[in-house]
Amino acid sequence: MRLKLTIAYNGGPFAGWQSQTNGDAVQDVLERALTKISAHKVAVHGSGRTDAGVHALGQCAHVDVPGKMTPQNWQKALNANLPPAVRIMRSQKVKPDFHARFSARGKVYRYLIRNGPIMPPHEVGRVWHLPHRLDFAEFSRTAKVFEGRHDFTAFAANRGTEVKDAVRLIRRVGVMRKGELWTVTFEGEGFLYKMVRMMVAAAVRVGQGRESAENIQARLERAGPKWSHVAPADGLYLVKVIY
Amino acid sequence: MRLKLTIAYNGGPFAGWQSQTNGDAVQDVLERALTKISAHKVAVHGSGRTDAGVHALGQCAHVDVPGKMTPQNWQKALNANLPPAVRIMRSQKVKPDFHARFSARGKVYRYLIRNGPIMPPHEVGRVWHLPHRLDFAEFSRTAKVFEGRHDFTAFAANRGTEVKDAVRLIRRVGVMRKGELWTVTFEGEGFLYKMVRMMVAAAVRVGQGRESAENIQARLERAGPKWSHVAPADGLYLVKVIY
Repeated sequence: MRLKLTIAYNGGPFAGWQSQTNGDAVQDVLERALTKISAHKVAVHGSGRTDAGVHALGQCAHVDVPGKMTPQNWQKALNANLPPAVRIMRSQKVKPDFHARFSARGKVYRYLIRNGPIMPPHEVGRVWHLPHRLDFAEFSRTAKVFEGRHDFTAFAANRGTEVKDAVRLIRRVGVMRKGELWTVTFEGEGFLYKMVRMMVAAAVRVGQGRESAENIQARLERAGPKWSHVAPADGLYLVKVIY
Repeated sequence: MRLKLTIAYNGGPFAGWQSQTNGDAVQDVLERALTKISAHKVAVHGSGRTDAGVHALGQCAHVDVPGKMTPQNWQKALNANLPPAVRIMRSQKVKPDFHARFSARGKVYRYLIRNGPIMPPHEVGRVWHLPHRLDFAEFSRTAKVFEGRHDFTAFAANRGTEVKDAVRLIRRVGVMRKGELWTVTFEGEGFLYKMVRMMVAAAVRVGQGRESAENIQARLERAGPKWSHVAPADGLYLVKVIY
C-alpha cells in the first residue's frame, strides 16, 4: 500500500530533510521508525529537500508499506516511534502512481521576521530577528517583484550540479505585518535551492536601504549576476505541498 | 540606582527562577550578567519564583546598580550578556522603596492546552498536550469555580514551610478556545506554590469526566483534602506582574 504522509517538524535538531550518512536528517528518523514498525526496510520519498534548520508544517512524502495496517494506524504507530520534533499530521492511502515529488503541483513557503529591538525568547530559532528599522513598504514592494514567471538563476544557489532550467512560476507573494512580526508567503510551482531565503534577503536589503527594488528587478530580469545574500534557515517554513 | 527589570524567558533550559547552587536558574544567569557588566556583585530580587520549565513573558525583578549607565543602556548591556532564552523586555528607573516582591499588587498567569490527537512539533515544551477529548464547558465551569476570594489550602503544594495564610483573591479567570488550543488566564492578588498548575489539573480532570465541578468546589470551600494533581510546567506562563 502506498501512503501519502503529511509531516510537520521543528528543523532545529535536524541536519535538514535529506538522508545523511550520520543519520540525523528528518528522512533518516522517518525511515528508522517505518523500518522498526514494519520489520522491513521502507524508503521515504519526500516532495523535496529542506535545509538544516528549516521547519515544516506540511512537508509531504510517500512510502510503500507492507502488511494490512490502516493509514490511521500507521500514523499512530509512527507518531509513537518518532521524536516529538517530528509528527505525522496526516496519513492517507494513495494510488500506486502517486509520487510525492513528481505529482506535486506547487509549494507554499512562509518566512517570519521580527523587526524590533528585542527578540522574545520563544521565537529564538523560529523567526529571523532584525533589530534595526526596515522599511515595510520597500520590503513588500521588493518581495512582490518575484511574483510571476521568471528565470530565477540570479536568486538560486548552486547545489553541485547546475539546474538546466531555472524558470519557475511564483503564483503569489503575500506580505503581512502584525506589529513587529512580518510574514512573507510564497506560493509557487516549484522553488530552486535556497531561492526563498535569497528572495527574502533581497527584500530585507532593500528594506534596509542598501539596495533598490529596481536593481533587484533588473537582476531578476537579466538572470544575473548571482545574488549573494541568504536569509537564515530559522525563519523558514515549508507550509504545504500542493497536489 | 534601583532598576525595575521586566524579563521574558523560555523556562525549558533552566532550573526555575530561584537561584540554585549549580547556577542554572534564571536568577543566577541574570546575576552573572549584572556582575560581569558592573564588576560588582549585584543581587536580583524577583517578584516570586517560577518552577523549572515554567515560562515568563513578564517576570519582574529589581536590582540596585552602581555607576551612571542609563536604564536603556543597562537593558542593552544585559541583553548582550544574557543567553537568547532570557531577555530584558523593559528596564525602568524606580524609587528606592520599590520592591519587586512586596510592591506587587497582583500577577497574571496563563496556561496553554492542546486538546487534539496530534501535538505540533513547535508546541513541544510550551503547551500541555491532552490527546483525548475534554469537555470544554465542564473545563471552563471548573476553572471559574476558583474566581473570588478563597482559602486555597487544598489547591497548593507544600514547600517545606507551610504558608500561614492561604487565602487569596483571584480577580478573574478567563477561558478561551481557538480550535484545539485552549487558554486559561488567571489574574490574582497572589498565588501559592503550584496553585495555578493544581487548578488547571482540576479543570482538566473534570473535563475528562473523572471528577465533578461540584466536588472541586466543595474541596475548595472546605479547604481540603489536598488535591493531588498538578499540570505540567510546560504550559504555564507568568504573563505579567501588576504594580
